[in-house]
Amino acid sequence: MRIVVDAMGSDNRPEPDVAGAVLAAREFGETMILVGDQVRLAAELAKHDTAGLSLEVCHAPEEVTMTDKPSEVVKGKPASSLHVGLALVRDGKADALVTAGNTGAVLAIATLRAVGVGRIAGIKRPGLGVVFPIKERPFLIDSGANADCKPEFLLQFAIMGSIYMERVHLVENPRVGLISNGEEEGKGTELVKESGALLQASGLNYVGNIEPKEFMSGAADVAVTDGFSGNLIMKTSEAIAKYMSDTIREELMAGPRTIIGGLLARPAFGRVRRQLDPEEVGGAPLLGVNGVVIIGHGRSGAYAIKQAVSQARVVVQSGVVQAIEEGIR
Amino acid sequence: MRIVVDAMGSDNRPEPDVAGAVLAAREFGETMILVGDQVRLAAELAKHDTAGLSLEVCHAPEEVTMTDKPSEVVKGKPASSLHVGLALVRDGKADALVTAGNTGAVLAIATLRAVGVGRIAGIKRPGLGVVFPIKERPFLIDSGANADCKPEFLLQFAIMGSIYMERVHLVENPRVGLISNGEEEGKGTELVKESGALLQASGLNYVGNIEPKEFMSGAADVAVTDGFSGNLIMKTSEAIAKYMSDTIREELMAGPRTIIGGLLARPAFGRVRRQLDPEEVGGAPLLGVNGVVIIGHGRSGAYAIKQAVSQARVVVQSGVVQAIEEGIR
Repeated sequence: MRIVVDAMGSDNRPEPDVAGAVLAAREFGETMILVGDQVRLAAELAKHDTAGLSLEVCHAPEEVTMTDKPSEVVKGKPASSLHVGLALVRDGKADALVTAGNTGAVLAIATLRAVGVGRIAGIKRPGLGVVFPIKERPFLIDSGANADCKPEFLLQFAIMGSIYMERVHLVENPRVGLISNGEEEGKGTELVKESGALLQASGLNYVGNIEPKEFMSGAADVAVTDGFSGNLIMKTSEAIAKYMSDTIREELMAGPRTIIGGLLARPAFGRVRRQLDPEEVGGAPLLGVNGVVIIGHGRSGAYAIKQAVSQARVVVQSGVVQAIEEGIR
Repeated sequence: MRIVVDAMGSDNRPEPDVAGAVLAAREFGETMILVGDQVRLAAELAKHDTAGLSLEVCHAPEEVTMTDKPSEVVKGKPASSLHVGLALVRDGKADALVTAGNTGAVLAIATLRAVGVGRIAGIKRPGLGVVFPIKERPFLIDSGANADCKPEFLLQFAIMGSIYMERVHLVENPRVGLISNGEEEGKGTELVKESGALLQASGLNYVGNIEPKEFMSGAADVAVTDGFSGNLIMKTSEAIAKYMSDTIREELMAGPRTIIGGLLARPAFGRVRRQLDPEEVGGAPLLGVNGVVIIGHGRSGAYAIKQAVSQARVVVQSGVVQAIEEGIR
């Protein structure tokens, strides 16, 4: 298998991106194609012991930054690591692309066939899925690709999410829930109501509306929503988790008794932190495009990049792209 | 001052509702008008020492349940405690209504002039505000009254929220933020973009788009959003806070060292829990209706009801309803 690692993706590129690719090449024995400025990549690779590993470098002189506007980079930076990397996937020279880069830019470039991989036939809008880092590991789609959605988009997200959970996470007949502000039918926006009717008639294992509480307690394997709401759920969760950790730390430091208690309890806090760590669940698969694309967090370290490569391998092996193509037909 | 307490509101009515009204009558020395079934209320009141308190009972034979459909109760239960209580406010026989009842039903009844208090002239849609229970105490509006919104609704929520924070929480020139999935202008749904343009031109102290992270860190005093998104933010926060507490408790119980640590640290956890307790910040004001209406959590206890009455008093004294009327003109 040949997997492209965007070496100019993460906030601290190219260091963690290259280190992650080296880790992955060693652990999985597959070929990693590092895409980026070849001089910088050669210098970075020289820091590692790469003897016996299958690592290639593919030159891409331009760099997409986190503040670049997606609409501008598509044509404005045609030799970026994303353009070069996605073209390798489109042309069959690689099986997947892993990047910790600008999500909007990845979406914009990947979706266009001329520069990226294009959409799967019949797909209206690719959706960004994410395995939510809680015990039940529910899949949330769309977690941020499409702010404004139509009911047909949500139906397709549900189909793609079901296929992903079935093939990649081996969940049989995944339960599909529709994120809403109330469980009762008739609750929600017009979008929710119309999408609910489509899902009801879809033949999927549809369990109806779910609220965030039900989502967190694993009432559905696939939770469907528009990208604006999905993004709010992700970001509110991160913000509240951070707020609570900070507040607990502060309160523990308030007196000697709680300081000692906090020190003794530290292993427990560590386990909770690791459990909620997005790095553990890998990256977000971009579903609906004509190739395997996994998007990691901008602040990914080497370990997270390696995990995303591991996920990309499973997605390639599971044949999700072909299954979505058939599912949509 | 005369404040209506819906005695048939909370999940455990009428016990906490009546107990809360008694507490409030004693602490504030104002008149509490308990609305509900007079036989049940008399029995409930007999459990308390009410000597010297100004407590009245107003009979309302019908009861709105938490599962009643809002659209059906408006005409279907014309003698409910909400109808009777809101009519008292409309007719000038009371200054405010406090209820822990079915939010949708309160909204539906309150908004109609014929049965409730009606909207303030010029208001398109009343909005449900809520002081978010974190250190910075930001105000979120709409937190759930209107699933589908138009840009003008969001502009009015911003005006009402600013007036509320200025008058009730004494925040000078409140900063108004627009909830979005990115800080940059141009991010968000069509609704967000159009609302942003209106807010930019509004003369309010508009600080632009804010993400949940900025909201939680107090980047705005008033955070404006549609009721679907506002509700998702509230409910996701509650669900994650509960998930984290449960997970920490579980992990603390995993071994003797962390059990002891957890016991020693208990006061710190207690302070965190109290800090995040919605009961401490009172109820949600329904802004844009022609009277003071405060909606508490269904699971409110007596203390929460008393806090909601306390809030209602401040709102009445601060003249928010009149200020909104002038602000909208």
